[in-house]
Amino acid sequence: MGKVVCDIAVSLDGFVTGPDDRVGNPLGDNGELLHEWVFDAGTDVDHDVFAERFKTSGAVVVGRRMFDVGFEPWGDPPPYEGLPVFVVTHEARDPIPMQGGTTYVFVSTGIEDAIAQAKEAAGGKDVGLFGGAAIFQACFRAGLVDQMLIHVVPVLLHRGVRLFERLDGAPIKLEKTRAVETPHATHLWLAVPR
Amino acid sequence: MGKVVCDIAVSLDGFVTGPDDRVGNPLGDNGELLHEWVFDAGTDVDHDVFAERFKTSGAVVVGRRMFDVGFEPWGDPPPYEGLPVFVVTHEARDPIPMQGGTTYVFVSTGIEDAIAQAKEAAGGKDVGLFGGAAIFQACFRAGLVDQMLIHVVPVLLHRGVRLFERLDGAPIKLEKTRAVETPHATHLWLAVPR
Repeated sequence: MGKVVCDIAVSLDGFVTGPDDRVGNPLGDNGELLHEWVFDAGTDVDHDVFAERFKTSGAVVVGRRMFDVGFEPWGDPPPYEGLPVFVVTHEARDPIPMQGGTTYVFVSTGIEDAIAQAKEAAGGKDVGLFGGAAIFQACFRAGLVDQMLIHVVPVLLHRGVRLFERLDGAPIKLEKTRAVETPHATHLWLAVPR
Repeated sequence: MGKVVCDIAVSLDGFVTGPDDRVGNPLGDNGELLHEWVFDAGTDVDHDVFAERFKTSGAVVVGRRMFDVGFEPWGDPPPYEGLPVFVVTHEARDPIPMQGGTTYVFVSTGIEDAIAQAKEAAGGKDVGLFGGAAIFQACFRAGLVDQMLIHVVPVLLHRGVRLFERLDGAPIKLEKTRAVETPHATHLWLAVPR
């Protein structure tokens, strides 16, 4: 069975978007600084890390808010390499098939069910939990996250949406299973103990 | 002239102490998890990183709160390898000479003056700004920090004192000049642009 991997870029000061994230400003002010490594500014090593996620993943899960702000800029075909994207939402909604093979599937029956459906669709590959912060936190609290792939970008945004918030309980020692350093990001693979 | 280097360990979720940090509980609940790499649990590589700070630094600056909670557990001689430690405080106070060569010098004339005195004492070596979070934030806001050496520890504390808070203004792209990975920490050297 594949793992559930929370795969997300964060600033050194812990933000996954800048302030004022909304439709039309999906990454928040200056949030694009978190993703430069994905594009031209990144190295081949960064690009390999990015591409690898689509080889190891068989399905993607995102939160409804990330879907709402991302739908238009992602375009058609969306940048999910044909993988199905499960959107956790409160409202039932028909699937949206896109070019390139990706279908947006809306799951209104809770995060456990969304993850279960994604696992089923992934056929033994990993489920990529791509954000945003709220769905990560909900999945983490529910014990649904097996691994984190955190791309720590050496930038200080000062404000925005924090990845690590609203978590509680005993401290958790993660097991760093792999790390890749480039000038643009520190890519950390961290296993969540059971 | 030496650099001012903010040298501090943070959890992956951004905390430099656990909750309830105070005299008698200087690192906050479970805050010792942030410093295991310094001690037996760390590797030789971790220990080299830790030792290097005392070779490149000629003086240390800490906040008053860190001094208050640290004074007793640090003991005599304190773990500063004989370097003078400048404590930024609001109350004038006589210096406290310790065994091993370290003297605690209290500076009540502001952070700029504390950094200036530490630079003078450092004789061309770096000034190590060892924490806590409040003095780092004050120095960073005042443009006094040249470099950060951040030891990112793969642990989630969930609560405590955040390093990156109360900063504002335009985003800052740091230049990663060096990185050392061990299972226990990601040691990142980051230059702050002028």
